[in-house]
Amino acid sequence: MDVIKKFIEKDLFAKFLGVEVLSHGPGTAKAVMAIKDHHRNSAGMVHGGAIFSLADAVFSIASNSHGTLAVAINVSISFLKSPIGVRLTATAEEVSFNPKLATYLITVTDDTGNKIAIFQGTVYRKKDNIKDIVQ
Amino acid sequence: MDVIKKFIEKDLFAKFLGVEVLSHGPGTAKAVMAIKDHHRNSAGMVHGGAIFSLADAVFSIASNSHGTLAVAINVSISFLKSPIGVRLTATAEEVSFNPKLATYLITVTDDTGNKIAIFQGTVYRKKDNIKDIVQ
Amino acid sequence: MDVIKKFIEKDLFAKFLGVEVLSHGPGTAKAVMAIKDHHRNSAGMVHGGAIFSLADAVFSIASNSHGTLAVAINVSISFLKSPIGVRLTATAEEVSFNPKLATYLITVTDDTGNKIAIFQGTVYRKKDNIKDIVQ
Amino acid sequence: MDVIKKFIEKDLFAKFLGVEVLSHGPGTAKAVMAIKDHHRNSAGMVHGGAIFSLADAVFSIASNSHGTLAVAINVSISFLKSPIGVRLTATAEEVSFNPKLATYLITVTDDTGNKIAIFQGTVYRKKDNIKDIVQ
Repeated sequence: MDVIKKFIEKDLFAKFLGVEVLSHGPGTAKAVMAIKDHHRNSAGMVHGGAIFSLADAVFSIASNSHGTLAVAINVSISFLKSPIGVRLTATAEEVSFNPKLATYLITVTDDTGNKIAIFQGTVYRKKDNIKDIVQ
Repeated sequence: MDVIKKFIEKDLFAKFLGVEVLSHGPGTAKAVMAIKDHHRNSAGMVHGGAIFSLADAVFSIASNSHGTLAVAINVSISFLKSPIGVRLTATAEEVSFNPKLATYLITVTDDTGNKIAIFQGTVYRKKDNIKDIVQ
Repeated sequence: MDVIKKFIEKDLFAKFLGVEVLSHGPGTAKAVMAIKDHHRNSAGMVHGGAIFSLADAVFSIASNSHGTLAVAINVSISFLKSPIGVRLTATAEEVSFNPKLATYLITVTDDTGNKIAIFQGTVYRKKDNIKDIVQ
Repeated sequence: MDVIKKFIEKDLFAKFLGVEVLSHGPGTAKAVMAIKDHHRNSAGMVHGGAIFSLADAVFSIASNSHGTLAVAINVSISFLKSPIGVRLTATAEEVSFNPKLATYLITVTDDTGNKIAIFQGTVYRKKDNIKDIVQ
């Protein structure tokens, strides 16, 4: 199993929420999450925390894809509309990258292709090797 | 049972994560979450999504405390340090409030009192009555 | 002169900073700003406030392009690298749009095409007609 | 003249906008800006870029107050209401601080004491000495 696959396996919170990773590559990742009752808030809508957490899962994979540990320092998320359908999809793209910092844009869409949220996140890149972390 | 208590009861995602609301009032709320293995990320740290979700739970209670439905439109969260101890505490304060929009500042601390994250969120205030939503 | 051109003419702060609008359309706008000494900060770099203000100018044009007054409620900006060259370019795209709220993504680039900053902003859409405002 | 005073003197953009620093200390700073016509936007309100820039000026002083160069990596600003009166005041407080990163909360108020904006910003702390930069 490759290192990033092991890294994904070890994300217990993402598993707890039902996040399923579809693909990953250098600076990118894509995942889906089937919407369950336990993802809903008091008004019956998908919880902002559930949407954030799906986006955060692909943010983590994309930012750790270069082989050294990346830790989130700041995220801004805009909630655009309520989803239609039964699952959410999150896609991460790398906007910028240097030895210490990197920034990602994650888009969350629903089954109709509507944008549900955009998530702009920055990581601090440590020197720890991902290989040592996933052992 | 009062309306906000019913509203809190209906937050299925917060329950799923183990969020326990300690107090609430007009424009404020405080909650704790015991840190479990299923809150951890690939590096063994508490997942950004879990920290966000705890903060989002008190944001929801504080912003809906005035009796009409508030929906989150934007949040910015800064992750300040890794927590020490076994649980996280989130406290919401109302920064500004008008008929259509309101802004909240949520602080997440650990068992030593260290600030783990700050969360700045804005809601759009709809006309729907919370009473009708929690029935 | 069309309404949006009058609207652009009336942005005194953008003029003060030397912002020059290149193009505008429904939900979009593009502008440049020549970098002058008075845009620099204490370390001799282009000031974050100057970069923000250029992005804010196209955000304003794009979000007001539909004919009714839009006021900024939240912006998150990430500063990605220091610019190379003599001017900055900002381009706005509309990410989402409903009767009350709209969200925009603005990218600031330098003369080499490098991304200098990304800016994610949300407006509250009032009912006031832009025509009445620019008179 | 002390190093931070020289540092403040060298902020050409803050001077261009009329920012006047009232006080500064470790991790803090306070400044005012008289509102002029050239700070206004197309709708005649104080421009978001002008409010941001005042806040950014105290963010810069507070984050550079420890003697080594701090560069902004992310800011989120919420615009809460239009100011009343003739000037704006910005106050910075340090929320967290470690060798590489630090986070600040800046509040902008008007002459009536109303909160106009809150600004949450994070810097990356370089090793360059401020003394060498202001020479």
